[in-house]
Amino acid sequence: MQTEPFLLYKQLNRLKPAVSSALRLWSSSPTALPGLSLRYAASARLYSGLMEPAAPLFRQLFESESSTYTYLLADPDTREAVLIDPVLETVDRDLQLIQQLGLNLTVALNTHCHADHITGTGLLKKKVFGLKSGISKHSGAAADIQLSDGDCVTFGKHSLMVRETPGHTDGCVTYVTGDQRMAFTGDALLIRGCGRTDFQQGSPHRLYESVHQKIFTLPGHCFIYPAHDYKGQTVSTVDEEKKFNPRLTKTVEEFVKIMDNLNLPKPKKIDISVPANLVCGLHDI
Amino acid sequence: MQTEPFLLYKQLNRLKPAVSSALRLWSSSPTALPGLSLRYAASARLYSGLMEPAAPLFRQLFESESSTYTYLLADPDTREAVLIDPVLETVDRDLQLIQQLGLNLTVALNTHCHADHITGTGLLKKKVFGLKSGISKHSGAAADIQLSDGDCVTFGKHSLMVRETPGHTDGCVTYVTGDQRMAFTGDALLIRGCGRTDFQQGSPHRLYESVHQKIFTLPGHCFIYPAHDYKGQTVSTVDEEKKFNPRLTKTVEEFVKIMDNLNLPKPKKIDISVPANLVCGLHDI
Repeated sequence: MQTEPFLLYKQLNRLKPAVSSALRLWSSSPTALPGLSLRYAASARLYSGLMEPAAPLFRQLFESESSTYTYLLADPDTREAVLIDPVLETVDRDLQLIQQLGLNLTVALNTHCHADHITGTGLLKKKVFGLKSGISKHSGAAADIQLSDGDCVTFGKHSLMVRETPGHTDGCVTYVTGDQRMAFTGDALLIRGCGRTDFQQGSPHRLYESVHQKIFTLPGHCFIYPAHDYKGQTVSTVDEEKKFNPRLTKTVEEFVKIMDNLNLPKPKKIDISVPANLVCGLHDI
Repeated sequence: MQTEPFLLYKQLNRLKPAVSSALRLWSSSPTALPGLSLRYAASARLYSGLMEPAAPLFRQLFESESSTYTYLLADPDTREAVLIDPVLETVDRDLQLIQQLGLNLTVALNTHCHADHITGTGLLKKKVFGLKSGISKHSGAAADIQLSDGDCVTFGKHSLMVRETPGHTDGCVTYVTGDQRMAFTGDALLIRGCGRTDFQQGSPHRLYESVHQKIFTLPGHCFIYPAHDYKGQTVSTVDEEKKFNPRLTKTVEEFVKIMDNLNLPKPKKIDISVPANLVCGLHDI
């Protein structure tokens, strides 16, 4: 349901060109009185403030067993909400928060087909009528929305742009807010790290290229919100990772050597998680 | 070292009263031309924008064994930084981040004398020359700065105001940013919960009064950043806790009954943590 501020915004937005033009004419007119023109300038500023959408409501949520971050974004006016990387075990926590905040969850997105946990998308679809699931079309996973590079997922006046960032898996994407202030990088770029490249179509060459071409080209102040963190860190920035990421600041040859010699154990849940996540949103709980 | 923008800010700040007054006179003068007065109004806005300090740099950090949040705040211009509730085990992680961000850690604050972990303040003081520790004077703990209600801890152009919020312990405080956009509530108010009141001078009556008088009186949109969370939640707001906190939305009588019947086990580390934290910043590591 649309709230009153949203309706006001819509009405004012429709009037915007005419009002702006009238104010411009008025202020430049030699017959306008100085005091009045100043007052109108103040109104124009106030009015213009109403034109800008308020910052999205934002919450970072953590699932401790798989150290996964789930992100909630919503339009504070229309109340439309998106969840990025929901986890099966924390669906009820997330839905309670969404209900308390008076939000209407319309889309559940995954940054990729996860190997370390089962996505909450399937359960969410059972619990939230009309909810759409979204994942990269290159993931091989079923979903209502099959996303490609350049696609845009909207929630109210806000949006998330899709940037394909394969390398950890073929179907990894980064979701970037319309104002490029936040990037949800999944396992492509972690804080001072990156996702492994030794299973599920992993390719260190592709990952290096993805991060350098699709993430490091974002504004330096853009916040990096990864799918995981194992050291209690919550956020980074493009500038920071460009300077301090111990792997991705290396040459591509050095990076490949590092990634090929990590010798990590197989993820505990991979044999359960991947098949379940491949039928993202449709598997039997 | 002061950066150039900071020096510019200082110079403009010194001129502010004279310039504002001249602009006010000019714009109200009947001899001023409308176009000019508008141009000057725009300059005044630009100038006034320079007067506002940039938002503080902010990081939330987590220590998983005790589920403690540590907060890093810094002035982006002067680079002065404050840590709230550092944990012994994560001191090196925090110092590395501070070094990478080019910050100068000047103060380490505690919201109270913790029972569940050893503060990182002592180790930080050994590692950072000139670092001051701060805690409530009612905590009974040693520190360089003994804080009272209404005290202000500054870092560059930013500040944290001290609000005494006893009840979990006698020496619990909430630190509130100067713009009242963020409150670091320690164990007084947790997300949909609160600290226990069954040891260390705990008093449910005092805690109820503290939260209602000192935290719930902050602006509704003020973010609540607690000392702990056990469910993967990272932040709340005053409005949310006033509506949805299952304990503090009750009457004082109901609240006391809930708190007196929690039957929680004794914190694992209390016999080590409290004595260490009472000599906050001076204990032998």
